[in-house]
Amino acid sequence: MRRIKAVVYGVGSMNSIATRMMLEKGVDIVGALARSPEKVGRDLGEVAGLGFETGVTVEDDPDRVLSSRQADIAVIAVASYMSDMYEHLRRCAEHGVNAVTIAEEALYPWNSSPMATAELDHIARRHGVTLTGTGHQDVYWVNLVSMVLATAHRIETVTGRASWNVDDFGPEVAKDQRVDTSVEDFDRWLAEADRPPSFGRNTLGALVEDLGLSVAAQESTTRPEVAKQRVPSKSLGMTVDTGRVIGFTDVDTVRSHEGVTLTFEMTGRLYLEGEADINDWTVTGEPELRLLNPAVPTGVTTCTQLVNRIPDVINAPPGFITIEKLPRLRYRAFPLGTYVRDGG
Amino acid sequence: MRRIKAVVYGVGSMNSIATRMMLEKGVDIVGALARSPEKVGRDLGEVAGLGFETGVTVEDDPDRVLSSRQADIAVIAVASYMSDMYEHLRRCAEHGVNAVTIAEEALYPWNSSPMATAELDHIARRHGVTLTGTGHQDVYWVNLVSMVLATAHRIETVTGRASWNVDDFGPEVAKDQRVDTSVEDFDRWLAEADRPPSFGRNTLGALVEDLGLSVAAQESTTRPEVAKQRVPSKSLGMTVDTGRVIGFTDVDTVRSHEGVTLTFEMTGRLYLEGEADINDWTVTGEPELRLLNPAVPTGVTTCTQLVNRIPDVINAPPGFITIEKLPRLRYRAFPLGTYVRDGG
Repeated sequence: MRRIKAVVYGVGSMNSIATRMMLEKGVDIVGALARSPEKVGRDLGEVAGLGFETGVTVEDDPDRVLSSRQADIAVIAVASYMSDMYEHLRRCAEHGVNAVTIAEEALYPWNSSPMATAELDHIARRHGVTLTGTGHQDVYWVNLVSMVLATAHRIETVTGRASWNVDDFGPEVAKDQRVDTSVEDFDRWLAEADRPPSFGRNTLGALVEDLGLSVAAQESTTRPEVAKQRVPSKSLGMTVDTGRVIGFTDVDTVRSHEGVTLTFEMTGRLYLEGEADINDWTVTGEPELRLLNPAVPTGVTTCTQLVNRIPDVINAPPGFITIEKLPRLRYRAFPLGTYVRDGG
Repeated sequence: MRRIKAVVYGVGSMNSIATRMMLEKGVDIVGALARSPEKVGRDLGEVAGLGFETGVTVEDDPDRVLSSRQADIAVIAVASYMSDMYEHLRRCAEHGVNAVTIAEEALYPWNSSPMATAELDHIARRHGVTLTGTGHQDVYWVNLVSMVLATAHRIETVTGRASWNVDDFGPEVAKDQRVDTSVEDFDRWLAEADRPPSFGRNTLGALVEDLGLSVAAQESTTRPEVAKQRVPSKSLGMTVDTGRVIGFTDVDTVRSHEGVTLTFEMTGRLYLEGEADINDWTVTGEPELRLLNPAVPTGVTTCTQLVNRIPDVINAPPGFITIEKLPRLRYRAFPLGTYVRDGG
């Protein structure tokens, strides 16, 4: 069996979990990269909170690490948008290292950042490596949905709803989600806000491509989520009054030339007691279908998919290969290296 | 575009729906087979209740139809068990016609009927055709479950629960499911009954194979479902008293050498007001996962998968190819012929 050599690129909360999972699945960590001075120079196991030393020191020079370790893949968790990811992905490709990332936009950046994606695709092909975006949305918002749709005779509408808890990410994110503003202030902010495209657009892009449909029109709207009762916020250390904003929902809609309307509603707001992340899809047409994952552990399934995708990315043809082009994701009962094909 | 030529093999309730779906997806029906004298000699559209004539007459000689129509595939819905299916599948293969069937055991007959399956595999290879079993269980009990498991780091147990309503299939099936017997009579019947393996065994066989695990031990048990209140039975035209049997549950369990325990509980009983077929899977390990399809339209999704699988079966290599070896099932937005590869 071949052992996979990986570089941990970014040592935050997601890649700390992914590091443990990779070690448990027989991956050799041959390098770790971070920018923060509190992390650089320390052992990866210590920085990632694994409770043991890995013998791998966290470094801050990506070019040195990528050029010297003969890594099969870089596992990147540093940013969400392609504008921030471009340099990291380019660097991996130019050093001949495959890369997989949980950057949300990278799931299907062909529609939101077509130029950057085409450039990276070109660089990756020239260097014979694969670049791929994955994460929670890979299975839960695209592949699982596509598989349910495979049991339809005729689709009219596909409507997905997912949520995340604003309170899980600290006071800054709570403020970004406009928690405790008035609806009037929210509307004023929204009218002037220069927000990047929501990730729902990338999700629906992957889904439409996977279904073999073509986009006729698309639109994105945003609505405030308003407290129907007083809602405590842990991260802000206060309670939001009834009638004030507790977050918002981005609604992306795509109409296909084939007459299918796909909608994805992504809500980030304060949760009430007992609420959890959900994944809830409804299909109309023949027949009506429903898929529900109650209480999804989004953070963990982000890491599991990042790790379980590694063999697929190594095996894939060169280029920026989005997930609808990869084999369906599988459980990895054995060390990840056993799933790598000769020549992969 | 190539047009697919199909033989409708058996014109019961499932293949009547499948016939309409095939016609709507651009399939040419080149023959129809039934045994019942009330069906033979009539137009397929009339027998299937389509509301229009198809120009295809229902015939009763499979050898004549299979040898003379240059069909790409036979779509078979006539029986559930391999013992009944063997002759039908052999005949298709020997006439060089691919076959897809909703016979439940055919989903993964390698464990329950290994000899017959190996023989059919041999005959199919010799004649260059593919034989495959599909149906509701393809996506809902195997592929969808496998995709959720792909988001796990480590699986300990996988537990599935599905149900069907005894009252949907007439008085004979209700009697077979022991409706309105006492628990004592049920236990006595169960101790002496010479029942074939439950289809849960085939489902778990496909799932274990798909996960790349190997079977260490398996067992099947059956428990009565007992009325907790008075339950009316439409098919029997009576009401079952509290404490009496309203059906039963087959529980199949597989323990793998890799330490995973998979359980599938299939319940066939009288439903209470408002109940519907469910598909409910729970996974323990890291992390805990849940998949729920409330109110599954099992009959329709049996037909949609039968029809949507047609291109996969035509494209597949020769042999008895079970679904975990096929590409993941996809929605067919366009005529089925567009999904057939050259040489398929």
